[in-house]
Amino acid sequence: MPGRRKKRDTGCPFAYALDVFGDRWSLLIIRDMLLQGFRTYGQFLSSGEGIATNILADRLAHLEANGLIRKQRDPENGRRYLYHLTEKGADLAPLMLEIARWGAKYDPASTAHESVMARIDEDRAAYAAELKARALARD
Amino acid sequence: MPGRRKKRDTGCPFAYALDVFGDRWSLLIIRDMLLQGFRTYGQFLSSGEGIATNILADRLAHLEANGLIRKQRDPENGRRYLYHLTEKGADLAPLMLEIARWGAKYDPASTAHESVMARIDEDRAAYAAELKARALARD
Repeated sequence: MPGRRKKRDTGCPFAYALDVFGDRWSLLIIRDMLLQGFRTYGQFLSSGEGIATNILADRLAHLEANGLIRKQRDPENGRRYLYHLTEKGADLAPLMLEIARWGAKYDPASTAHESVMARIDEDRAAYAAELKARALARD
Repeated sequence: MPGRRKKRDTGCPFAYALDVFGDRWSLLIIRDMLLQGFRTYGQFLSSGEGIATNILADRLAHLEANGLIRKQRDPENGRRYLYHLTEKGADLAPLMLEIARWGAKYDPASTAHESVMARIDEDRAAYAAELKARALARD
């Protein structure tokens, strides 16, 4: 659990990365921001994976504390926050595409669109760059 | 926790992938198998990240149940098991390199070798293929 985890500073880039985003829910939140353009707490909560509200709040705070996302008040509704991926968070786009590719290859129940998977195979770097640029443009 | 998690079958390749390997310890075990060539329980346990023995046993069983690793008795020591990555597990090589690349970019304490990171940048697909082939050859 990110909230209770203390940093180990082993100098290993894997260990650092996994301390920051290495749990299922954090990665699903980043997926929703990157691929679905989700920006509000309510959107994350009703994303279909059944995240509990306390876990969602914990993961959003952890991602924000580590500089992957930031929040600002919604200019159209001062009682609500909008969440954005930072450059650091949007830089997870290539990794997200690798997760999707692996999942689509091995999940017997996968409903991933073949056209999307073909695009990942043919044009992965450009697709990742596009997702990243789109996420940053949502600001 | 993988052991207690029930599959959701949402058809999303992300959700499937993260159910299978989406926790810090599973990914560190796969890192050690892929990059360090670790094959024994004792090697995983003393890997430097401080995994508890019950968590290690749980994650190894989960990875085996999902077909990412398999174990066999050590021919030289019948009381010991050797763990191997399967094709499915070794197919995580590109994803592992993306994690390393992101971590090395953003971890202020990273001690990742620049030569390794340069190789990932220049030659990612070939490097991933080499890691995968090496893991499968360890059989």
